[in-house]
Order: sequence, then structure tokens, then C-alpha cells
Amino acid sequence: MKRIAVNGFGTIGKRLADAVDAQPDMEVSGVTKTRPNYEADLAVERGYDLYAATEAGLEGLGDMAEGSVEELLVESDLVFDCSPTGIGARNRGLYEDAGIAAVYQGGEPHDVAGFSFNAAVNFDEAVGRDAARVVSCNTTGLCRSLFPLVEAFGVGDVSVTLVRRGGDPKQTDRGPINAIVPSLGIPSHHGPDVAKVIPGLDVHSMAVKVPTTLMHLHAVSLQLESRASRSDVLDVWETAPRVMQVDGGRGIGSTAELCELGRDMLRPRYDLWELALWKDSVTVEGDRLSFFQGVHQESIVVPENIDAARALLEMADSEYSTRTTDDALGVIR
Amino acid sequence: MKRIAVNGFGTIGKRLADAVDAQPDMEVSGVTKTRPNYEADLAVERGYDLYAATEAGLEGLGDMAEGSVEELLVESDLVFDCSPTGIGARNRGLYEDAGIAAVYQGGEPHDVAGFSFNAAVNFDEAVGRDAARVVSCNTTGLCRSLFPLVEAFGVGDVSVTLVRRGGDPKQTDRGPINAIVPSLGIPSHHGPDVAKVIPGLDVHSMAVKVPTTLMHLHAVSLQLESRASRSDVLDVWETAPRVMQVDGGRGIGSTAELCELGRDMLRPRYDLWELALWKDSVTVEGDRLSFFQGVHQESIVVPENIDAARALLEMADSEYSTRTTDDALGVIR
Amino acid sequence: MKRIAVNGFGTIGKRLADAVDAQPDMEVSGVTKTRPNYEADLAVERGYDLYAATEAGLEGLGDMAEGSVEELLVESDLVFDCSPTGIGARNRGLYEDAGIAAVYQGGEPHDVAGFSFNAAVNFDEAVGRDAARVVSCNTTGLCRSLFPLVEAFGVGDVSVTLVRRGGDPKQTDRGPINAIVPSLGIPSHHGPDVAKVIPGLDVHSMAVKVPTTLMHLHAVSLQLESRASRSDVLDVWETAPRVMQVDGGRGIGSTAELCELGRDMLRPRYDLWELALWKDSVTVEGDRLSFFQGVHQESIVVPENIDAARALLEMADSEYSTRTTDDALGVIR
Amino acid sequence: MKRIAVNGFGTIGKRLADAVDAQPDMEVSGVTKTRPNYEADLAVERGYDLYAATEAGLEGLGDMAEGSVEELLVESDLVFDCSPTGIGARNRGLYEDAGIAAVYQGGEPHDVAGFSFNAAVNFDEAVGRDAARVVSCNTTGLCRSLFPLVEAFGVGDVSVTLVRRGGDPKQTDRGPINAIVPSLGIPSHHGPDVAKVIPGLDVHSMAVKVPTTLMHLHAVSLQLESRASRSDVLDVWETAPRVMQVDGGRGIGSTAELCELGRDMLRPRYDLWELALWKDSVTVEGDRLSFFQGVHQESIVVPENIDAARALLEMADSEYSTRTTDDALGVIR
Repeated sequence: MKRIAVNGFGTIGKRLADAVDAQPDMEVSGVTKTRPNYEADLAVERGYDLYAATEAGLEGLGDMAEGSVEELLVESDLVFDCSPTGIGARNRGLYEDAGIAAVYQGGEPHDVAGFSFNAAVNFDEAVGRDAARVVSCNTTGLCRSLFPLVEAFGVGDVSVTLVRRGGDPKQTDRGPINAIVPSLGIPSHHGPDVAKVIPGLDVHSMAVKVPTTLMHLHAVSLQLESRASRSDVLDVWETAPRVMQVDGGRGIGSTAELCELGRDMLRPRYDLWELALWKDSVTVEGDRLSFFQGVHQESIVVPENIDAARALLEMADSEYSTRTTDDALGVIR
Repeated sequence: MKRIAVNGFGTIGKRLADAVDAQPDMEVSGVTKTRPNYEADLAVERGYDLYAATEAGLEGLGDMAEGSVEELLVESDLVFDCSPTGIGARNRGLYEDAGIAAVYQGGEPHDVAGFSFNAAVNFDEAVGRDAARVVSCNTTGLCRSLFPLVEAFGVGDVSVTLVRRGGDPKQTDRGPINAIVPSLGIPSHHGPDVAKVIPGLDVHSMAVKVPTTLMHLHAVSLQLESRASRSDVLDVWETAPRVMQVDGGRGIGSTAELCELGRDMLRPRYDLWELALWKDSVTVEGDRLSFFQGVHQESIVVPENIDAARALLEMADSEYSTRTTDDALGVIR
Repeated sequence: MKRIAVNGFGTIGKRLADAVDAQPDMEVSGVTKTRPNYEADLAVERGYDLYAATEAGLEGLGDMAEGSVEELLVESDLVFDCSPTGIGARNRGLYEDAGIAAVYQGGEPHDVAGFSFNAAVNFDEAVGRDAARVVSCNTTGLCRSLFPLVEAFGVGDVSVTLVRRGGDPKQTDRGPINAIVPSLGIPSHHGPDVAKVIPGLDVHSMAVKVPTTLMHLHAVSLQLESRASRSDVLDVWETAPRVMQVDGGRGIGSTAELCELGRDMLRPRYDLWELALWKDSVTVEGDRLSFFQGVHQESIVVPENIDAARALLEMADSEYSTRTTDDALGVIR
Repeated sequence: MKRIAVNGFGTIGKRLADAVDAQPDMEVSGVTKTRPNYEADLAVERGYDLYAATEAGLEGLGDMAEGSVEELLVESDLVFDCSPTGIGARNRGLYEDAGIAAVYQGGEPHDVAGFSFNAAVNFDEAVGRDAARVVSCNTTGLCRSLFPLVEAFGVGDVSVTLVRRGGDPKQTDRGPINAIVPSLGIPSHHGPDVAKVIPGLDVHSMAVKVPTTLMHLHAVSLQLESRASRSDVLDVWETAPRVMQVDGGRGIGSTAELCELGRDMLRPRYDLWELALWKDSVTVEGDRLSFFQGVHQESIVVPENIDAARALLEMADSEYSTRTTDDALGVIR
């Protein structure tokens, strides 16, 4: 039973704690917060030991806290760093001092761990490492749809426009309210980040931010290197891990209905751990394949994190780990 | 075991079917749809017998449908009418022809049933009736907070501004995108509708529609007829049925964090069956009491409908019914 | 010809500079910026001398800047402080050192000037003062509709719910995207602020923030102290200064159509300097008067600022000033 | 002096009437409405003769109307059809019966006129025709940026993702409020529509709809057929007609600041007749050129319509017409 710490019990952290708790071979050693808010209350209700992420937090949390993050780390085998973007890199020394393995999130740079992880692509290379970075939600989504195509047909140039949510549902201080905000640097960082996981794959990305909270949406257009029909492509994705095909013809016409689907499936927090691919958008014209996909920014990386933990801690091989993760969570395989 | 039909398996209908399914003393006889969309698929996956709500639907649903709504009704003891606003009144003949009890939703006029229902206020009067109308989400929310005050202190004039969501999450064709839309007729229909349930209570309401999908929010200001302190009021609400006090100081600062709370509580579809009252907004100045409350438009009427069914079918008394409903769903009492 | 400085050429400042420029008896001595952005470019195109609001700004603006804010102030008779909320109070010493009159905006506290101004209410009291604070857009709007009623009929308790915009159109970093955010402290500061201008008027306000950028909307309900019919009230407002009656029956159904009206009137920046009152919402029930009004947060205080300048500098009496201001801008009287 | 009718005085129609009114060689013969709303009031205030677009409108408009649309047409030389999408095609017989030239909008199919117009591309081919269709705002925007590149360098495959506004500011009944809605058919109709104007140009388009009202935004990526540097491209666009380069570095970071720019330029209705190109987004990598552009859906087609009228009525050659149009409106050339 491996003991896993969650440093930062927020959007990603609370999902990872619940996901660890659902696994047969790991348990939550504790979670951290900086303030005594409703998420801290939730940690207590769930029975997770609560620690203070910062010195100020130790005072703010008062009796709620069992101790400091340092005290938590020494009792743990691995830590999920779920601190806000940019703080993760600053925490590295903390984890190294505690002598435990660390999994970082995609907001941190590749160099924080020297290794960017996706379960389907490079699990084996992660085995036994001290640290790994699970790539961001957008990059994870792109790896999920692209890697099976690379293996089946070969893929040339990929162009993707990322239509990004402005903030998560609970981030009410984030905008925009009524604007489309392009990332003027082209390509955006998302495309090149894919090559950190799938070396040699050339993904050219442009990104815009829009006034929505639910999901990101990708408009993808790519060159297939060998001849494939639309149904060949759909067949490949049918068996691709953590990919869910959805049907506009059944009324799944937007990111909102995708989330409604998550609600109707009675998913916890309506999480969509799978990449959602609109099958009626899949279009092959000559060697060009185009399609739309939806990425649930709050949850798509959850299963990847669990697998990364098993790889670092040498707990299982890729097949066993991903099957165990998916069964425990209820991921559509 | 009473057999309950759900006519219209949409936003309210799918929740009512699941709620019926969770009760020990009733079961879903079948549900209806007009089109073969993802909600029809859901009905099938859940194991609910699917019927066609309309003749066109019978063709559209094809093999998915067990038959027509008429065929469903004759096998049922009671029907929840969950058809779009205005259609319910047109369905009345259908239910009368089938000779079964009917529960209508608040979008229909009072006259459709001649009786407007709220479990805490007038359960006993509904016992044995042929039909009842569960008042709308906004009216239900107002009854929840106001009735206990009426009983404890007496209530004079009530002023409420309803800040309404533009559409439900899945209703992507509804606006506004960037506007505040007042209902120019004053008072709006919501206030007078409360008096259909609590006779003599004078609620003056003004309503605006805003670009959000999550919840309605009410700004309430009223006169207490007997002296009461802030803590007297909070004490009354502490034991009021289906009322949940929430705390801005713990980070529940908006309707978005309220829904995040529903997600973190792992509620199905993050439903908030309770009226949410911001306890740190509760202010007493002289005889004036002011506060904010949040209403989850998709789910707040679910427990009321279940109780209405028990009342019409004379299955239980008020106390037994509400306790059974709440235990089965997991409502905070 | 009085020389007027505008310290902060942003949302309010650029409007005030253009408004000064349009008056026959004052001119723009210069405007300030902190950064060389498109608004700085605009100042140059308009022919306004540009100064640096801060030391860092002096470097950033480079050749665009004529000098420092201190250099601007000594060449001016009065300054409009249009710096971000809270900075105005810190600038007071600067203006006192330069020995010039200062007009502050409503984001600053009453104490910054010791006097809160509205042209129709207390112009005469401002004459010859060193400083005045023009009350905020919301308070200005409330003074516009309420003061004529106070004078005509007497006004008892006033209840208002302010439905506020989340940010101005250009403030793309502000939210919320999808939430209703109540100000949990009741009453909100807006109501009591009216009493700073109209002593003794008791305005009880509750405020919520919503995902829109265009305007604020107020739901107002008040007690008339002497009997008045709906048409009596409309008559009073017909001659009230800077009040515009709009008609839902002609399709002005929301804040969006109000702004469309400003566009169709070919207003600069579609500014609505007038308070917009929905005449078909005006309802009298007994002694209670209820109505909706819209406040254009970017521009409603512009004419008040110009009048405040004339009062402080003893340039004109109230009637001459307001008529001159309104004629120069094109305000509906 | 050519007499121009505007059939449909709404979003496009009111702009075209004002644009005609500003030209030295044409005048407004009349405009039509179906209902007596604020836009009908505006027509009267502007001094445009108002006619009823429909028989029901004749009754609704009452004394406001001078007569029927048929009466207007016989007194006119040309009509701008600005009726809602799809109605234009049904009006064709009306215009043919009156024996006058007709300009349709881009919501109508190419076949309605048999000719799709853009002033810079095919003015000469339109001379003397009975009818032309000015292509939609999105297609017009694409023609503006692409045609100069075709002429200067040659252009191979073009990929564009159109991020579309959900509705115009005044269309408060349109959504989505919180969703990204992909057009599942790929390619969307926008790309192929470009080839109706620039034969042989292969534009592959994917479209999504988002919760904003201000502008469309295009993410464009294309192959240049001859070698060109970034500055070569910017030079070509510098002299391209009706193209405006904007600068993220000066704070124009989104469609909202673009509209703020239109406001600060004191444009009527803040209209942006020019295509807005983000110069700091322009990126050349090998033979691939990528960039973002913004399209003001309410106004970009206005100058094209005026030129189309001159072409059909053989009033001027291309150079004279476009210069006259642009000078009269104040378009940046």
C-alpha cells in the first residue's frame, strides 16, 4: 500500500485524492491547503489528513491541520504536486529533501521533472524515475487522439486551433466576460509540448480564450501518411485508450451537452476523464483528416497521474496500471 | 409498489425518474421522449421503459419505444408531467382519460390542477386529490425560507428581486449572452404565486434575466412581525426542512461555488435539492430582515414532486413521506 | 478659459478629456498615462499633451510624454483624478502641493474631498470648494431618479437591488464568466452613499455581480410620502435633468438594446450620459412605487464631473453650468 | 443621383442607409420595417421614408408608413435586400417585378444572384449586372486578407478556424451562454464560399460558436507559393484595401479592445469596416504563414455593398467607387 500525498487540494488535487482513495494499491497519506475554505472542510469530511501547504496556512487552518507539508512528505512515498502553476517548480527542493518521488502537473515546465508523461505513450520510460510531469489537459487530449493515428497510419503535419475556456467553474474572478482573446504568439506552447511526449510529431497550434468555463475544444486538421478511410480512423479510435466517441446526431452538440452527459452518467463532479471525439465531425478529404474534440480541463489528467505514480514507484506495468486505474474510476476504455 | 410514469424525460423528468427509482415504495412504469437523442439513450441504459410522447416520436424512436404515452399511462398509478411549459395543460385530458393522478410542474398555471403544492406547507390538503401542481423552482425556494418565518415570527411585506439564469446548462440556444433583461411587468408572477401556497403572504417580486446557466439568486428583504434577532432567524432555518445554510467566509461566494459544493458532495448531476441560504448575508435592521438565497432550478423541486405523488396516492403522511424522500435522495434535512 | 488636467486617461479619463474639449469655457491642459498603449496613442491623436502619471511611466512613455504629472498640475487650474479606485486618495497630497482644485471619482471615499457631489442636488454647496468627489455611477443614477421624487412627493424607505456588470467592455481579465456573485454585506455601500448627497434619504441596497459588461441595472421599490399616480411620477421624471425614459414596447427590452440605442443615436462611444428609466416598468401600488433603471457605468458621471469643475472654480451658477454641459455634449435634458 | 431602397432596416440595413446617405452620388429612397420598434423610430428621426416590409407591417406601422415595399421599389433604382437570412431569396420576384437592380447579403445562397461580390476582387465583373450577392462578413474578411497574398505570392492550401460570435449585441434571445458549439459538418460553408469570389483558392474551414457578441475571430494558417518574409507579408497588407493592422503590444489584445478602438475613434456605432489583422501574430515558418484576424460582423460588408451598388448601376469604375465609398465613410485605406 503506497502512501500518496496531495500537495494542493484544489481543482486537480481533490480529484487526485479521491482517485487515489479508489485504487486498491495506494492510499492518501494527506492533503494540503493554504486556507480554511470549503475545500479544506471537504478534506476533513472525506477523512483525509489535512496539512498546511505554507507557514501562513498553518496559522490559518489552526486545529484543522495535522502539521506542515514537510511533516506530510516524510510519511509519504510520492507526492502529487497540485499547487498553482509556477509554484510546483519552486516546490521541487521540498520533495527532493523528503527523498520521495514527485508527479508534477502540466502547468510546470518540462524541466521540472525532465520527463513529460502520457500513460499510453511512454509509461515504460517513466518506470523508476524520481519525477515526472503529467502534461497539461490540452496536451493530454492531443496525445490521446494523435498517438493511435501515428501508430496506425503515420501522421505528418498537424494543425490545431485550441478554443480554451477562460476559467474553471469555481474561478469566478477570471474573464473574459465578452471577448475572444487570441494568444498572439504563434505557435502556442501546446503544439510543441506534444513533441515532448511523442518525439518528432509536428503539431502547429494556435490558441484563443473564450467566455466559457466548461471545457476546451480543439479543431484538428492533419495529414495521414498512409491511406485511410473515415471508418479506418474511427476503428482505430474505437480501441484507443481513454477516448470516448460522441454523436452530434444524438444531441451532443456542444461542450455543454458533453458535460450534461457526464452528469447523466452520474460521474463524480460530472468528470469526463476521457477525451471526447465528435464522430460525426470526423472527415477525410484525400490525405487530410479533420475533426473536433473536447477536453475536460478539470479531470482528463486524473487517470494519467495515477498511472504516473505507479510507474515512478515501480508498482505495475503499463497494462496492469491503466486497467486498474480505469476500473477503479469507471473510465470508458 | 406504486407505478409512476414520467411524461417528458428531460431536465426535470430524468431527475424525477431517478428519484422515483430510489424510493422504497414506488417504481418507474416508463418515461417518454419525442426524439431519439442522448437522453433517450440514457433512459434505455438506466432500464426505464421508453415510450413516445407524441405520434411523430413513435416513428422517430422506432424500436427504442415500447409504445405510445397512452399505453404507458394505463399501466401507471400517477404521472409526472414534465413536458415543456404550456404543454402540460394540454396534456390534462390525456391523464383524465387514463384515470390516473397527475402532478404538474410550476410552468403550468395554477388552474391546471386547482392546487399548488409545497411539501412543508400544504401536504395534508393534497392527500387524495386527483391532481396537484408543484410550484416553480423560484416559488419553491421562497416557500422554503419564508414559511418557517411566517410560523415563527409572522411576516409582513416581502420584497424580492429574482436574478434568473438565462437557460439551463444544456439549453445552448438560449440567451442572453451579454445583457441584463428585466421583466418589465411589476410585480413579476413569482411573488403572487407564493400566495397560491401560503395564502395571505404578500410577496412583491421583480425579476431580471442574466447570462448564466447555473442557478437563480434571490435578494430578499422583509418585515418581521415580531421581534427577532439574527440568531433567532438562523435558528429557525437551522431546523427548517430542505434548507442548507452556506458560508461566504468559507469561500462559497457565488452560485458557481454553490454548484462546486454540489460536485464535491458527489451529488448526482451536482444537484442541490435544498434551498441554499447565505448565512453571512442574513441581516436584521429593526424589523427588516434581508438575505440572499440560491435556487438550483434543475433540481430543487425534485423532492417536492415525490412528496406530491405520495400525497395524491395517499401513500403516507407528511412526516413519513418527507423523511423517506430525503433519506432516499440524501437531502440535508 | 480654465485649464483642466486629467490624471488617468482610461475609461473615465478619456471621456472627461473629450467632454472638457467640447466646452466653450475650459480646455485640456494635459492628460496622464502609465504605459504606452492604444489609449496613450489616442491622447496623442486627439492632440492632448501627454504626461507620465508615475516615474516608471516617464520611462515607458519615452518621447510620447511631455513631462511628469507634477509638471502638468502646476500648469492647470483643476485636476480630474481618474486614477484606479483607491489611488485617488493617495494622490491628494500631489494636488494640494500644486495648489489646484481637484475632482475625485466615486471609487474614492467621501473623506477624500469631504464633499460628495451631484449637479442637480448640491451644486451650490460645491461652489468655491477646493475639492469634491463625484459619486459613483450607481449612486449618481439613484440620485437622478430619487431626488425629483423627494422634491415632488417626499420619499420614505427605498429598497434597491443593484445588478452590476462584472467589468467594462475592455476589462477582459475580469469575471465572472458564469456565476451570480452577491455582495454578502447588507446593505451594500451604494444605498448609504446616496445619503451623502441627499441627507436623510434612507436607501437600502443589496448588490449582485453578473456576467455582463454593458450596464448596471437597478430594481427599485420605494414608498411615496404623498399620494401620486403613475402618470404623476412620469411627469416629474419628464422634466428631471439627465433622465431618459425608454420604452420596452418599442423593443428596448434590456441593457443591450439600451446600448444599441446609444449606437443608433451616433453617440461617441455609444455613451448614455442620462439615467435610462423604463417607463413601462413604472408601477404604483398604493404608496409603493417600483421601477427598473439602467446605468451606463462608463459615462453617466461625465456631465456631473464637468459641472463639479465649474462649481469649484466658480465659473458659473448651476443652471448655466448644467445647460452648457448638456448642450456641448448633446445630453437629453 | 441614384435612388436606393433598403429592404429591412435592421443591423445591416440601418448601416447601409446611413452609408448611402453619406455618399455624394446616391440617396435613400426609403427603408422598410415589419414592426414599429425603436429602429422604426430611428428611421423617422433620420428622415428616411418608412415603408412596410410586409402586409402585417402595414397595419402595425400605421401612420408611420408611407406605403408598401412594392410602392418603394418602383421609385428606386436599386434595392439592398437586408431581410433576415433566407427571406432574401424569397424577395427576388419582388425586385424583378419592379425591374430594379438588387444587392443581396451573404446569408443568401450564391444562386440568388448568380454572382458573389467583393470590391477588391471582382468589381469589374459586376458592372451592369441585375443582381449581386455581397458575401458574408466572414467570407469578406477572408477575401480581404487572402486576395492580396494570392496576387503577391500565390497561395496554396488555406486552413482557417472561425471562432464565431453567438449573436449580435442586440440579439438577446440568442445563445450560447456557456458552451462552445462546433459546426460538425467539415468543412464549414465559409471556406468554399471564398472560392465563389476567388476561383481556385482552396480554403478549408472549421467553425465554432462561442458566447460573445462583439466580433468573429479567425485563426488562419496557409501555404505561400513563393518565398516571403514576415515583413514582405506585412508590406503587402499595408497597402491592401480595407485592412487595418492592429498591435497586441499596444494593448489591443482581444475583440473587446478592437471594439474599444472603434469607440475611441468615435466611429458611428463603433463600426469597424476594415478587416483587423493582428500584426504581432503574423508568423512565417518556412512556407507557412499564420495569423489572427478579427471581423466586425455588423459592419465589415457595408463598404462592399456601396461598391456593389455602383457596379450594378454602372455609376463608376472600381478605383473611383472604392475611394469615394471610403472617403465618405472614413474607412482606413
